[in-house]
Amino acid sequence: YAPTRCAAAQTSAEQGVLPPCHHHEAVHDPQLVPCTCPLFSCPWEGHLEVVVSHLRQTHRINILQGAEIVFLATDMHLPAPTDWIIMHSCLGHQFLLVLRKQEKYEGHPQFFATMMLIGTPTQADNFTYRLELNRNQRRLKWEATPRSVLECVDSVISDGDCLVLNTSLAQLFSDNGSLAIGIAITTSKVHNAEAEI
Amino acid sequence: YAPTRCAAAQTSAEQGVLPPCHHHEAVHDPQLVPCTCPLFSCPWEGHLEVVVSHLRQTHRINILQGAEIVFLATDMHLPAPTDWIIMHSCLGHQFLLVLRKQEKYEGHPQFFATMMLIGTPTQADNFTYRLELNRNQRRLKWEATPRSVLECVDSVISDGDCLVLNTSLAQLFSDNGSLAIGIAITTSKVHNAEAEI
Repeated sequence: YAPTRCAAAQTSAEQGVLPPCHHHEAVHDPQLVPCTCPLFSCPWEGHLEVVVSHLRQTHRINILQGAEIVFLATDMHLPAPTDWIIMHSCLGHQFLLVLRKQEKYEGHPQFFATMMLIGTPTQADNFTYRLELNRNQRRLKWEATPRSVLECVDSVISDGDCLVLNTSLAQLFSDNGSLAIGIAITTSKVHNAEAEI
Repeated sequence: YAPTRCAAAQTSAEQGVLPPCHHHEAVHDPQLVPCTCPLFSCPWEGHLEVVVSHLRQTHRINILQGAEIVFLATDMHLPAPTDWIIMHSCLGHQFLLVLRKQEKYEGHPQFFATMMLIGTPTQADNFTYRLELNRNQRRLKWEATPRSVLECVDSVISDGDCLVLNTSLAQLFSDNGSLAIGIAITTSKVHNAEAEI
């Protein structure tokens, strides 16, 4: 239940710009992956297997373990752009939750939440993630297949193919400026079985 | 499964304006309720008990029956503002589903969906409604307490206290221009029991 927030968030908000997504262009060796922390223009690159330790050590991103966890994003009032990031270790894999506050329309910040597998797109297709908000007699659930961190989190969010919250809904689901996001990962087989019930 | 769309939708889209919400101002006799069809500046008013027959007869709004129904909203490409409206008869009450396409931010139409009880706010508090979209390996569920039709649907939607979909998500959940919305109503007791599981 320990909350964490990417150490880079505040910096980016002060600069008022997000670094461009240059994952694909930067990778010459297909075995190498750039840093996947979305708020740093980090020059690091390495194999997929060491992305998790890079994120932990360099960017101080915490890992939560368990099939179902709750991530508490604090200080939701921080100005856009701000990112909240946590890793989730589950079913033998690590996932990256990105919650982003961004002004797609000027003066109207929105919250976007998505999960990425720290793995290949083919591996990602085997999973389903669920994000759930539950408060004030309201419940919002989003279920989808995670994207791979080899894809660009910026494009997932700009496409709006993720959980999207306007500010008033975010406030209804928040408690004292903090948003509790329930996260669950299942394998796609389990997901399909559920759909048939 | 029979889809319906408020006959007034097209007219309103052509005019490019929504009539102002004047429910509260218009009602002098607290026993009388104005017409609740959100797209008409309809001069009708009557007792709550006859709102349903007014909506059916004057505005040709269909009623779907059953604990869980699917409402198919067709022609999602129609320009904003457009409303899709259906009544849902369930647990001895009638509910009004309003799906609205509206440009809160110019050039960026969004979809807003909410359910209203054709009854008083006190009666509405006894129920929970669920709207569910399910397609393309994505699932979005919204659960909340319905508002009463004595409240203003315009303010519910402008507050964003409802299911909100951007255009790209609406397309992902649509099939051939139609959006299938699963609707379920439960009493709040059942809802609380579910929350404890």
